Amino acid sequence: MAETKLLPEIEQDLIYRRKRLGQIMQDAGVDRLLISSATNLFYIAGCVFRGYIYLESDGYALALPVKGEIACKMPCIRIRKPELIADALLQVGRELPSEIALEADTLTYNQHQRLAKCFHGAKIHDASPLLRKARTIKTEVEIEFMKSDGLHHVEVYRHIGKLYRDNMTDLEFQIEIERELRKEGALGFLRTAGSDMEINMGSVLAGDNADTPSPYDFSMGGAGVSLSLPVGANGTMLRTGMTVMVDMNGNFNGYQTDLTRVWSIGEPQELTMKAHKVSQEILEKLERIAKPGVKISDICKIAYDIVERENLSPYFMGHKSQAGFIGHGVGIELNEQPVLMMRNNNELQEGMTIAIEPKFVIPGVGAIGNENTYVVRKSGLENLTPAPNEIGVL
Amino acid sequence: MAETKLLPEIEQDLIYRRKRLGQIMQDAGVDRLLISSATNLFYIAGCVFRGYIYLESDGYALALPVKGEIACKMPCIRIRKPELIADALLQVGRELPSEIALEADTLTYNQHQRLAKCFHGAKIHDASPLLRKARTIKTEVEIEFMKSDGLHHVEVYRHIGKLYRDNMTDLEFQIEIERELRKEGALGFLRTAGSDMEINMGSVLAGDNADTPSPYDFSMGGAGVSLSLPVGANGTMLRTGMTVMVDMNGNFNGYQTDLTRVWSIGEPQELTMKAHKVSQEILEKLERIAKPGVKISDICKIAYDIVERENLSPYFMGHKSQAGFIGHGVGIELNEQPVLMMRNNNELQEGMTIAIEPKFVIPGVGAIGNENTYVVRKSGLENLTPAPNEIGVL
Repeated sequence: MAETKLLPEIEQDLIYRRKRLGQIMQDAGVDRLLISSATNLFYIAGCVFRGYIYLESDGYALALPVKGEIACKMPCIRIRKPELIADALLQVGRELPSEIALEADTLTYNQHQRLAKCFHGAKIHDASPLLRKARTIKTEVEIEFMKSDGLHHVEVYRHIGKLYRDNMTDLEFQIEIERELRKEGALGFLRTAGSDMEINMGSVLAGDNADTPSPYDFSMGGAGVSLSLPVGANGTMLRTGMTVMVDMNGNFNGYQTDLTRVWSIGEPQELTMKAHKVSQEILEKLERIAKPGVKISDICKIAYDIVERENLSPYFMGHKSQAGFIGHGVGIELNEQPVLMMRNNNELQEGMTIAIEPKFVIPGVGAIGNENTYVVRKSGLENLTPAPNEIGVL
Repeated sequence: MAETKLLPEIEQDLIYRRKRLGQIMQDAGVDRLLISSATNLFYIAGCVFRGYIYLESDGYALALPVKGEIACKMPCIRIRKPELIADALLQVGRELPSEIALEADTLTYNQHQRLAKCFHGAKIHDASPLLRKARTIKTEVEIEFMKSDGLHHVEVYRHIGKLYRDNMTDLEFQIEIERELRKEGALGFLRTAGSDMEINMGSVLAGDNADTPSPYDFSMGGAGVSLSLPVGANGTMLRTGMTVMVDMNGNFNGYQTDLTRVWSIGEPQELTMKAHKVSQEILEKLERIAKPGVKISDICKIAYDIVERENLSPYFMGHKSQAGFIGHGVGIELNEQPVLMMRNNNELQEGMTIAIEPKFVIPGVGAIGNENTYVVRKSGLENLTPAPNEIGVL
């Protein structure tokens, strides 16, 4: 059953998150902010409801639910519609803000214009970059949620080999993996940022389907089985010599881990083994080197240098179409900050949680490479998804 | 495997859809329109890609893909970013528009502002109502997609009883239903309109969990198992005397059907049977009465009158929290126009596809009621989801 009250340590952590967001607001010269997206309501209040949270930069927060229950301790006024926000603020003795930040990266244009009007001529700022910044550095409580995800995620991956049967398609294999994830507690829902991501519970790619580009912003593609959702498994019959890349979602509690492992139908070929070894070498090298203060571009360069040295560049992060990143932040959403790409000159910071996914696509074989989710610690990366690293043979 | 080319009858239908949207644009005084959402790209081009379609009200269409393949026949210029749209238009000899409609209900505020700038001072209109209007009336080709969905959907529902085992939770039951749907070809992805809908593949509600309100805009609620997704099954152990309402999604091809049936653990009680009978009576009455030209408010009134006559009003469309509608349009998205609610004075039109869901929530028992997806025909409603109407006994 779902808890209807939050544990005291979560309540404490939510207060800390609101204070830290308040500090980020102050640094950006933003005094007032209105949260409206499910993702950020969950981040700030520990629960999803329909409505808003009004925040002042000193940490004061007022929940304004239109529908649903508020699990956390917070002053709360129920409203029927956003036009009643101003009345609610006056009711609790707050002044109407002369400036307010709205979530311009998640509100639709029409929602944004409607909300802006509710503040009667206040100057409108963009809250989205501030919330992204706050969410990039996880608290220990958030990391515990992700650690718990990782344990469940790994538990399912340990037994994936048992789900394979001869003459199965990629999709049939995926359906059995989905069921095991669900039985382990996966919510079956994948929260992503932006409009360029649509998928069900993740991706299983076999053989040359891995080399089919997709319109979405995932690292790998796949044709899918419908032109309405052109991504992932396409019904490929699993045959000897193919690899099967399993990149299924690990959302068990509202936070997510990202974890990829590869299985081979029959013994893997030489180039397959080489690509796998190089992917794991990159991960192990970055596990030692990636620390707070290290530039993200430097981390990426280490990966690209190893790939080039091994003459695997034509296959790295795709073959026909190559992704422009080797990893990404992960948390409440699958794709958070930072993006691990060459042109990102920011430094890693303690408490970031990142998925690193050095992957290869080899024509005639399929996708190869491991992906783990890590938390950036003082001493290096802590692996939240310690599944066996070897290619499984089916 | 996914088709990479469209059938000739689909190509023809897409041309017709573009012409009809052009007529709607003309009626609204809108000459130029830019499509950007996955849903509307699929509607206009028969495939999802990342990018845009530029439409003129005479039916001329230019695809402007940023990423992904265009399956349909249409003039096409690849662009790297929306700032290159104007160059692309000049390249094919079109004049830059002085006015353009953008999808203000799906673009985020920041996306909308970025796109508006790409048209160098053009006056910006709202494309969303025009696209909603076009999509409300389905073509015969679209109806065929939904008919096909309905057949698969019903096939799975016929065998749901076999998935039940003693001492199962609602969630365990749902996981087995999800697997059967996936094996039957369900995409596992549910496309919805607006920001007020989050769910995985649908909802299974047992016992009093059906009476827990949810923040989302679905007809029924449920606590869910995580505060990050407070909807649907909550881990209730299925026990004698409870009903289990199965409202799982039928998206097999990009179009959807909406279908609900109820199972009872043990023989259903008297009030359960009565509510079920009244739900089915409402559906059968509306199947005869709902025709083109009939007011939606009149249809709703018939339903509410029957419910009142039977003294079931306290349970109708929920108990603690009651939904304000008894049905809704369905198509590419689960929640389309029209909404079947008392204050909707519009008339039904031929070719609308609507889900009607007269449901009850009885405390101590659970949710009861059938839901079908229909197409509005000249003579009345044609049922696209003809599953057995009886309550299944488990």
